[in-house]
Amino acid sequence: MIEARDAVSVIGVGCSRFGDRLDAGLTELFVEAYLEALNSVDKGIDPNDIQEAFIGSYAFGGDQIGNVAAMMVDHVGIPGIPATRIENACGSGGYAFRAAVLAVLSGQCDVALAGGADKMQDVPGVRARLWLGGGSDTQWERWHGLTFPGVFALMATRHMYEYGTTRKQMASVAVKNHDNASENPKAHFQRRIKLKAAMNAPMVSYPLTLLDCCPTSDGAAVALLCKSELAKRYTDTPIYVSGFGSATDRLASFNRPSLTTFPAAVKAARLAYKMADIEPKDLDLVELHDCFTIAEIVLTEDLGLCDKGEGGSLVEEGQTEIGGKVAVSPSGGLKAKGHPIGATGVGQIYEVVKQLRSEAEKQSRQVQGAEIGLAHIQGGFGVTPTVHILRR
Amino acid sequence: MIEARDAVSVIGVGCSRFGDRLDAGLTELFVEAYLEALNSVDKGIDPNDIQEAFIGSYAFGGDQIGNVAAMMVDHVGIPGIPATRIENACGSGGYAFRAAVLAVLSGQCDVALAGGADKMQDVPGVRARLWLGGGSDTQWERWHGLTFPGVFALMATRHMYEYGTTRKQMASVAVKNHDNASENPKAHFQRRIKLKAAMNAPMVSYPLTLLDCCPTSDGAAVALLCKSELAKRYTDTPIYVSGFGSATDRLASFNRPSLTTFPAAVKAARLAYKMADIEPKDLDLVELHDCFTIAEIVLTEDLGLCDKGEGGSLVEEGQTEIGGKVAVSPSGGLKAKGHPIGATGVGQIYEVVKQLRSEAEKQSRQVQGAEIGLAHIQGGFGVTPTVHILRR
Repeated sequence: MIEARDAVSVIGVGCSRFGDRLDAGLTELFVEAYLEALNSVDKGIDPNDIQEAFIGSYAFGGDQIGNVAAMMVDHVGIPGIPATRIENACGSGGYAFRAAVLAVLSGQCDVALAGGADKMQDVPGVRARLWLGGGSDTQWERWHGLTFPGVFALMATRHMYEYGTTRKQMASVAVKNHDNASENPKAHFQRRIKLKAAMNAPMVSYPLTLLDCCPTSDGAAVALLCKSELAKRYTDTPIYVSGFGSATDRLASFNRPSLTTFPAAVKAARLAYKMADIEPKDLDLVELHDCFTIAEIVLTEDLGLCDKGEGGSLVEEGQTEIGGKVAVSPSGGLKAKGHPIGATGVGQIYEVVKQLRSEAEKQSRQVQGAEIGLAHIQGGFGVTPTVHILRR
Repeated sequence: MIEARDAVSVIGVGCSRFGDRLDAGLTELFVEAYLEALNSVDKGIDPNDIQEAFIGSYAFGGDQIGNVAAMMVDHVGIPGIPATRIENACGSGGYAFRAAVLAVLSGQCDVALAGGADKMQDVPGVRARLWLGGGSDTQWERWHGLTFPGVFALMATRHMYEYGTTRKQMASVAVKNHDNASENPKAHFQRRIKLKAAMNAPMVSYPLTLLDCCPTSDGAAVALLCKSELAKRYTDTPIYVSGFGSATDRLASFNRPSLTTFPAAVKAARLAYKMADIEPKDLDLVELHDCFTIAEIVLTEDLGLCDKGEGGSLVEEGQTEIGGKVAVSPSGGLKAKGHPIGATGVGQIYEVVKQLRSEAEKQSRQVQGAEIGLAHIQGGFGVTPTVHILRR
């Protein structure tokens, strides 16, 4: 699969502000991201060059139940092109980006759009387990009360038991990601929090407090991809898709041999590292699926940023801060930038591309000299991950 | 795009019985189709050869709201591979098949699974406009009362006005498709109807009676695709994907210049014919999106099987019967084989492949000497069509 390395480039990215977007509907959020993406193509792009679209959407906030992808290309003014909605729960955006990469590699299009959008506020009951929990196993687990905070709490207590991980280390993830988000104009929570506040926040599911949990947000994101040999037509700084991998895991958590690792993420990352021919230590920044603080700790291990069991001390020692060994969740992550389900994976690509282009809005949040970044997202309890490695 | 011609082959197909499947859940329907697909690979296939899955599902009957694709590969015993749920309303299955073709063309996998499944009985209100209508424009049309029978009735009356199409001609579509389904063991309605009964059935939306409308069904279908250069490992009779095309139209019907044609279907078909380097007259059989009888009449025109306005007489003269000029909906179509939304498009591929392999269950329903077939499906009011041309 090595021939795919660097064969596709990202030439433009856009991202709406994430948050409680009372001011915008689903299509308006998408338009916001789309226009920024067009404008970010430094040599300009004719929208008619876009030949294909893949759009991740989970809960189709608003009321457009079907054909959301066609609705999006219609609303931004490029109707007619093939448009596909991708839904893999919280992994929808990552899988949409991947589908766009495959479409370009297939030779069937030169320029493709990967997007994502969700308006979680408009979905009745979504902030309860009714809808959002629908990405977990329903037959054996969700219906019997195992919510996402519940299953991640099981992961947390087991990680504490096996590796001595502490609540303070989990809270450190929240503090770092809020610090990062406080500088990010796109973030849902643009404010810092204190370690003590994180630890003393209301308990959701022991040991996870409210501030160990990401919010659900409204938002949209768009990336424009292009066959690399054409990329210089559009931009002086194409960002290459150097490697990618994806996998699935069994849907139900009871079918897993361990609660302290996401094997599908490990597999997806291995495929991506192999294709990109790099090692984890080569990464300058990582956006990962920190839906709960424990998830960031486990995923820093699973992605090979540290040894198994050391994710807690990695963050506590400040090694994953901007300026540390490797910046993890420099955008603020799901935890603080926010989590508009279908948009999140493409929003990670937005952040990585901005960082690799040295275009972070403030120098304080720019990962200096960033050359290689990784985006990891997953749907369900680690069920549908994608990993993409980008380089400038 | 010509280099894609015949580069991908279908090596196996399976289809559950369509209908009111009180005896089976969503995953069980999928297992039924999957096992038939495996068994239909005449030289045998190791399930572990399947490297990727794309699964069309619209209403995820049952309660698994997200991650349906991962659930399916888990339940059939091939967890771990990348699995993507595709949702483009009634076009979901066609787009899933297309995504699998692109994945094989991308060089990222040799063998891919395209599947579809829906269990419409389990979705509350689905047979009202609540859910199924969700593939049409919601903001401007659905919420204001324009149901699918309603918009297709507008198409029918306009077609009657412009071209003299008659209610009898529409009823002829229903009679033919029920005739075909009566011989098809997979069909929802395995019984014939009389012309008079069709015309005198209860009126749903003038001029469409109950028997002008397709049912919603439970069902699943699976196709196994392979890089053509490897196909002979698996089968002596690979069926080649000779051409394909897809497009989108604007979501709302009020944005269309005409109510008597589906421009996106015309465009998708042109792309497919060009890639396959054939003309409509070369086709031996066609499965198309006959959600209402008027849709079959319009689509026979849009796909180039007759001139504009002649779809009514084409069917009335018996030219689209099995044994006629070109067999249209030999399976019974959506109208009588049934319409388990996400499964339908893959179910069409099933029918075309069976016919091209001369494997129809009864000689009476075999299109004699069939060499080239076409499958067309679309989501919404002609919004998201795909066209695939297969040849033996």
